[in-house]
Amino acid sequence: MSRFWNKKTRELKPYIAGEQPKQKERIIKLNTNENPYPPSPLIKPFLEDFDTGELQKYPELTCMELRKEIAYFYGVSEENVFCGNGSDEVLALAFQAFFENGASALPLSLCDISYSFYPVYLQMYDIPSKPIPLREDFSTDIEPFLEPSGGVVLANPNAPTAMAESKEDIIRVIESQPDRVVLIDEAYAGFGVESIAPLVKKYDNLLVVGTASKSRSLAGLRVGWAIGSPELIEGLRRVRDSFNSYPVDTLAMKIASISFRDVDTYKKNCEKIVKTREKTVKELEKMGFFVLPSEANFIFASPKRVGAEFLYKKLKEKGILIRYFPKPRISDFLRITIGSDVQMEIFLDSVSVILAENGGSV
Amino acid sequence: MSRFWNKKTRELKPYIAGEQPKQKERIIKLNTNENPYPPSPLIKPFLEDFDTGELQKYPELTCMELRKEIAYFYGVSEENVFCGNGSDEVLALAFQAFFENGASALPLSLCDISYSFYPVYLQMYDIPSKPIPLREDFSTDIEPFLEPSGGVVLANPNAPTAMAESKEDIIRVIESQPDRVVLIDEAYAGFGVESIAPLVKKYDNLLVVGTASKSRSLAGLRVGWAIGSPELIEGLRRVRDSFNSYPVDTLAMKIASISFRDVDTYKKNCEKIVKTREKTVKELEKMGFFVLPSEANFIFASPKRVGAEFLYKKLKEKGILIRYFPKPRISDFLRITIGSDVQMEIFLDSVSVILAENGGSV
Repeated sequence: MSRFWNKKTRELKPYIAGEQPKQKERIIKLNTNENPYPPSPLIKPFLEDFDTGELQKYPELTCMELRKEIAYFYGVSEENVFCGNGSDEVLALAFQAFFENGASALPLSLCDISYSFYPVYLQMYDIPSKPIPLREDFSTDIEPFLEPSGGVVLANPNAPTAMAESKEDIIRVIESQPDRVVLIDEAYAGFGVESIAPLVKKYDNLLVVGTASKSRSLAGLRVGWAIGSPELIEGLRRVRDSFNSYPVDTLAMKIASISFRDVDTYKKNCEKIVKTREKTVKELEKMGFFVLPSEANFIFASPKRVGAEFLYKKLKEKGILIRYFPKPRISDFLRITIGSDVQMEIFLDSVSVILAENGGSV
Repeated sequence: MSRFWNKKTRELKPYIAGEQPKQKERIIKLNTNENPYPPSPLIKPFLEDFDTGELQKYPELTCMELRKEIAYFYGVSEENVFCGNGSDEVLALAFQAFFENGASALPLSLCDISYSFYPVYLQMYDIPSKPIPLREDFSTDIEPFLEPSGGVVLANPNAPTAMAESKEDIIRVIESQPDRVVLIDEAYAGFGVESIAPLVKKYDNLLVVGTASKSRSLAGLRVGWAIGSPELIEGLRRVRDSFNSYPVDTLAMKIASISFRDVDTYKKNCEKIVKTREKTVKELEKMGFFVLPSEANFIFASPKRVGAEFLYKKLKEKGILIRYFPKPRISDFLRITIGSDVQMEIFLDSVSVILAENGGSV
């Protein structure tokens, strides 16, 4: 606490990102849903040829090169695309632009268990909300999302559960709230979930948010986007231009554009991760874990008897980082990023050893 | 207007950045205070050797490499340094963290003519303010800044006037408001103004904001910073982590670090710009312009008779972009970025031609 922080800053409960080990340590990092494979090989020659004098100038203000590539990929128009400094920034701008704040506003509908940054934004921007409990099996109960609201935020697949919504359910939500923005966060699309971004041409209240951090192996670059009707894109631009006119730097814009042009690397990396995920799930289930059905590049698994926190700590001692959330309903679970085959073998071996040392089973 | 924008978004009057011509046009761009010289030559070999696999991982969360370089440069400690995605983002976070919002808050003191993003932040974050008129000669009247306030924001040198504050005056302001944050925006330091950042060790209410966009030729990279007491830095971090945990991407962090290690290029480029500025001012004064004393990489000059807007438009027709602000008190002035010697010669020649065609003098 400091006398210089204003009331809001004193009250904030900021987001806590997954641990980032110091680079020199030998660590298997399965805690922040990073991609284990390098991004497009076309980035390397681009960087070798890059004229650093281009950095003298501000980035191209409309981010047009990247917006065109994103539009082409999703089958929409560039006027449907907004780019930002990672999808967290895009989400923050969307919360600011579209959801009313203050006690008198109709509450925003979102799942009680979802991306842990959402409640941070709600607090940050004073947006009232109605958290809707996931069902006992962690699937989304869609009926409450059809009721009048101040807007809807749904992650598809959801995090940290990794479970997907059905396209039909999402369309029902969109159609039930024609005057409210329905934000679908597709940070983890590409590993089983197909994007609904093309639907923005039909539904002007649909905003789809994506990121280059997961399926495109570019977490270090900070590039995210939103896809929506031109009026939603214009709303995001208004808020952005009241905050920071150039959130995407020149190198990030150009490198992300290269990634979008290289569909092959994107697809191959996603396919490899899905294969490794299926193998990992089978192995964990063999050991007795309860694993939620995953359409993401991570899995959410409960070791039942031995305890999630215990296993998390034991793995950490062995240099394997996964994510544990000490929160109601999910404190029996672990979120495990799907790494390379070799990383997952080491992970599974380590789990076996820990189980053997502690009673033989989960 | 859109039914999807919330009340706030509908009311916003966003910042308007200087025009960015399409890259293929032949344009002399003296309108956004970019540096005419390339950044450190050490950036090129770094990019050639960069392992793109590093982009798979999120950026190092604490931005420590860059914070250490900035700390070393300014003679402070890394715990005094915060990094963000351009100094506009850093300013926005500071306005959010330290200045109270709502009608009952004590108003923030700032100059009536200053960086045009400040009023945008005030509106965005509902911060009441007391704009203090610059004197007739555009110098800052420091006395009103010594009165009780909700905090102080001063650009040094000021923009768009280019005029510097005295160090003694700034210290008087800092000492007069021990319980309020005094934010000194040094975006244009390095061209005459020496940073007061080392004073953060003495004054825990002083926050100094800087950018790599101007003196370091890295506008395209989006790197800015704040220097202050650890409690101010922690306040910025709280707000950042309620918005976007990783605002500085890996490449931006590493490239800006290289720039800080290459003091030589920084100094040489600044010196060249100062020399060109002095020459340009002399030439404009010879032609009859009224030029404010500049300590920045731009000048603020009045063509008097012929009219600022007229000259701005005529130069634009010739492919030379400068900045004209149709605002009270400054609509007789033009803001002209100092480019290379060749660019400024073309600019001056074009001004001569326009004047000759329109009555012979300003």
